[in-house]
Amino acid sequence: MAHLIVECSDLVAQSLSLTELCDQLAAAMVECAIFPVAGIRVRAYQPVACAIADLDPHNGFIAMTMVVGHGRTKAELAAAGDTVFARAKASLGAWLADGYFALSLEIREIDPDLTWKANTIRPRLLAQTGKKD
Amino acid sequence: MAHLIVECSDLVAQSLSLTELCDQLAAAMVECAIFPVAGIRVRAYQPVACAIADLDPHNGFIAMTMVVGHGRTKAELAAAGDTVFARAKASLGAWLADGYFALSLEIREIDPDLTWKANTIRPRLLAQTGKKD
Amino acid sequence: MAHLIVECSDLVAQSLSLTELCDQLAAAMVECAIFPVAGIRVRAYQPVACAIADLDPHNGFIAMTMVVGHGRTKAELAAAGDTVFARAKASLGAWLADGYFALSLEIREIDPDLTWKANTIRPRLLAQTGKKD
Repeated sequence: MAHLIVECSDLVAQSLSLTELCDQLAAAMVECAIFPVAGIRVRAYQPVACAIADLDPHNGFIAMTMVVGHGRTKAELAAAGDTVFARAKASLGAWLADGYFALSLEIREIDPDLTWKANTIRPRLLAQTGKKD
Repeated sequence: MAHLIVECSDLVAQSLSLTELCDQLAAAMVECAIFPVAGIRVRAYQPVACAIADLDPHNGFIAMTMVVGHGRTKAELAAAGDTVFARAKASLGAWLADGYFALSLEIREIDPDLTWKANTIRPRLLAQTGKKD
Repeated sequence: MAHLIVECSDLVAQSLSLTELCDQLAAAMVECAIFPVAGIRVRAYQPVACAIADLDPHNGFIAMTMVVGHGRTKAELAAAGDTVFARAKASLGAWLADGYFALSLEIREIDPDLTWKANTIRPRLLAQTGKKD
């Protein structure tokens, strides 16, 4: 189970396709090879109001929070974060070239005793591909 | 204090009433009998973009995050999660019957040293009902 | 790095300017003097559906979650929370005067091994002000 929540301020959202960004980040998560495809859920949100840094109206941010199930080592998660963050940077080059952008990623692990899931995508993928993800 | 954040992808949101779902989940939280009614805050969000699992356009998800104050045992929280998750499954039977849905719940505890609250609903309920919740 | 996520139910959002509230809370964070200005990102969200406490239609809430990088003491964070929460209370006096409001703040620290950032606002501010923030 790997969730990726992408919060994106207005100017940044207007400058790109959030659907494409979600697709690119999901592809990066698949490449990490530690997150089963069936459990990947990338989603983006736009706040209704913001106050960023020195309040310059050109400022923008993308804040990513990856929430993952227990069971991977810290080294595996660090490598996965490197991969996803590199993909985000590649997609946001125009914003990173200027002095008005804050990009961040955090990974947070779910308490293994306090997690519940019901996933019907997994058995469908297994039936379609003949392999466990 | 018990927050429940319900993230719901578009197709799922179109297939049901999120207000009714919030009401049902809030009722389940009340039934748990460990969360004072005055502190229950269920809210739902719809992302502006998503990338789910194998990107099949039929895919949908609901991701629930319960955020609770310190002071309950892990067994109490596990039982509460069972109750809330069962209620969600009962409300989402149509989605669970097919191969395109991922439902999840996580409970996260707030650091007891880093929490602040001001709740005016509690004294109103106490005055109305004559009993502490 | 200091994020502040402000979730605000509909009636509360209709009664004030969320942009002004974000500005006030960002100013409070600056006053804390432990969060570099370049890393402050306050943002507000309105849920699409809610179920609050006893479901009285007058009920409202604001739930604030501050997410900060590692490296401050718990006493520093507690003092910062006091400052931000006091500012929120000052901005929400009308709501706090009645029996239908739940205000909360939580601070959560990011795992120092699982955090990534790229901030181009910091060098711009440094160049403009000549001082490190």
